[in-house]
Amino acid sequence: MQDLQEQREYHSPSCGIFFKTEKRLYCKNSAFQKIEIIENETYGRILFLDGLVQTTEKDEFFYHEMIVHPACLTHSAPERVLIIGGGDGGALREVLRHPEVKEVDLVEIDAQVIEVCRKYFPWLTENLKDKRANLVVADGARFIEESGKSYDAVLIDSSEPVGPSTSLHERGFYERLKGRLRPGGVITAQAGSPFYHLEAIREKYLYLHELFERVHFYLCPVPTYPGGSWSFVFLSNNVDPLIEKRTPPPGLKYFNREVHRAAFALPNYMRQRIEGE
Amino acid sequence: MQDLQEQREYHSPSCGIFFKTEKRLYCKNSAFQKIEIIENETYGRILFLDGLVQTTEKDEFFYHEMIVHPACLTHSAPERVLIIGGGDGGALREVLRHPEVKEVDLVEIDAQVIEVCRKYFPWLTENLKDKRANLVVADGARFIEESGKSYDAVLIDSSEPVGPSTSLHERGFYERLKGRLRPGGVITAQAGSPFYHLEAIREKYLYLHELFERVHFYLCPVPTYPGGSWSFVFLSNNVDPLIEKRTPPPGLKYFNREVHRAAFALPNYMRQRIEGE
Repeated sequence: MQDLQEQREYHSPSCGIFFKTEKRLYCKNSAFQKIEIIENETYGRILFLDGLVQTTEKDEFFYHEMIVHPACLTHSAPERVLIIGGGDGGALREVLRHPEVKEVDLVEIDAQVIEVCRKYFPWLTENLKDKRANLVVADGARFIEESGKSYDAVLIDSSEPVGPSTSLHERGFYERLKGRLRPGGVITAQAGSPFYHLEAIREKYLYLHELFERVHFYLCPVPTYPGGSWSFVFLSNNVDPLIEKRTPPPGLKYFNREVHRAAFALPNYMRQRIEGE
Repeated sequence: MQDLQEQREYHSPSCGIFFKTEKRLYCKNSAFQKIEIIENETYGRILFLDGLVQTTEKDEFFYHEMIVHPACLTHSAPERVLIIGGGDGGALREVLRHPEVKEVDLVEIDAQVIEVCRKYFPWLTENLKDKRANLVVADGARFIEESGKSYDAVLIDSSEPVGPSTSLHERGFYERLKGRLRPGGVITAQAGSPFYHLEAIREKYLYLHELFERVHFYLCPVPTYPGGSWSFVFLSNNVDPLIEKRTPPPGLKYFNREVHRAAFALPNYMRQRIEGE
């Protein structure tokens, strides 16, 4: 029996998170996925795709700051930036904080996500109006194959490797993406829960390690994500993920130099599983 | 209507975590609190006190390693150690990994917690048999007042500031505790969720700052705790929390030198709230 006063996400078949629903603001299937938005007293507005929390009003800054600034600050001048996914506009907001950025392509597969976020998360999507931002509604993997453009920083702000994001978690995608990096370019991608998805992280490490000189996982808290922590992977051919080339932009809630460095310190269980140490 | 197949903990009035219950192993009120133990497919055995997750089989190592090793490794020879709370034995296990330790007093207020953990978490409580361990069933705050003993490291492994642990979160307790430190002594105490309990952390900072030269909060993930991250406070008169005096003991799942240093890097929102920067 579903409780309409409550929205829950299972993190495994036997546990998960629940949110009391003040209001159900939106619930429809797009061509790609089920899109739901609720209002919750603690977290404000919450966006779910296929039942999984993507963004909440109160804790989105952890994830959005951490997918963007380690990449943008280790590049000396990230003029051309690509965001794949990220239809809510949160990663875009963080990219646009960097004055060096001249052009950002945001490639989101699901136009309906963008429309719904425009209505219910206007403070995130307002960044789409920035004249440096170029919105492309397309499949990210296909965009990479067909577009001839190359980038200084690429951010893979995908959903999980089920549904429309599946191809963004495959080796072939990263092989092609590598060819789209300008010299000194960097990629960061969300890589799942370091507690629940350790096996997927291990598998990703194995093929990425064959493609890139530098493959470094890093972590940050995200209270509403499974296990409360999230992982990202930093990819590059020659860029040290810990050396910031510029000062962090002002106004950040989570990120600073110390947190940047700290995020790359991995616990023993993760090191052992990933690198088979 | 309570679902007996499920145990939930509210993190706020409008959200929380749920666990499917394979088995309800124990559920009784002690003189101090309600003690419950369930079996869950993902986390194994879970201990709840007054409805709040204290320890789970699968993720206890994050918390127990992080409450112990930053204190024990920044002391050159932690011979005398005091644990207040910690009736499950997990912090004690970590303390006993340090060969320098000659004597550990574990002061737990609730004998029933110890008995129940002896039955359902024998792999944790087996450390109570170590000849260096000295179990005292007593109120921690009173023990500090009445016992004349002093210590190299003190670990406050308390439950939240409601119920039997309330006095362990008060200024008077820390004032007396300060008098129980041997030269070069250090204290670490669990300090709540950096997301949900920021105001309590701020208040604790304000009075601790008047008592100790060094007051440093640090963080680690704990998947089953509210928000998935937890904070601790490191207190000392003269010890740098980042300088390890010895090598970490072998066999740790979470802790290493890099993670130790990283844990003290606080996000902007926390710095600003705590230190009023």
